[in-house]
Amino acid sequence: MARVVVEIMPKPEILDPQGKAVAGALPRLGFTGFASVRQGKRFELEVDGEATEEVLAAARKAAEEVLSNPVIEDVVSVHVAKED
Amino acid sequence: MARVVVEIMPKPEILDPQGKAVAGALPRLGFTGFASVRQGKRFELEVDGEATEEVLAAARKAAEEVLSNPVIEDVVSVHVAKED
Repeated sequence: MARVVVEIMPKPEILDPQGKAVAGALPRLGFTGFASVRQGKRFELEVDGEATEEVLAAARKAAEEVLSNPVIEDVVSVHVAKED
Repeated sequence: MARVVVEIMPKPEILDPQGKAVAGALPRLGFTGFASVRQGKRFELEVDGEATEEVLAAARKAAEEVLSNPVIEDVVSVHVAKED
């Protein structure tokens, strides 16, 4: 059973309040050295059977049309997860 | 300026209603062949300067202590982003 990973991030020009909140909290909690934080989403799609090229193409289409909002988000990666 | 990527997923034994909702929506929208979906988070931490081993260690600690809830989530990856 293969697994496809889809990674989605807010577009650079979009304000990211969750990321801003984390970036503000880090130095207060002793984590310095991080200039900014952005928060996005990571999906794992469990595939019936092999992760063929067709499955990856379907996952890419689903990432663009269902998993992300193309107005405010970019799909940064669609790849097959390493077996674990 | 380097960027550290932190990936966090709900633990396998934790119910993931967002993932379940996506998994239910996909076949209705014509995407078949996906058995299940889980939704997690992906952070990009912008680093002041180089992504040294110390910076990565700090990012790992922040991932465990601030970015994730260790009761219900696993940190699945902390790595330096490829330059783009």
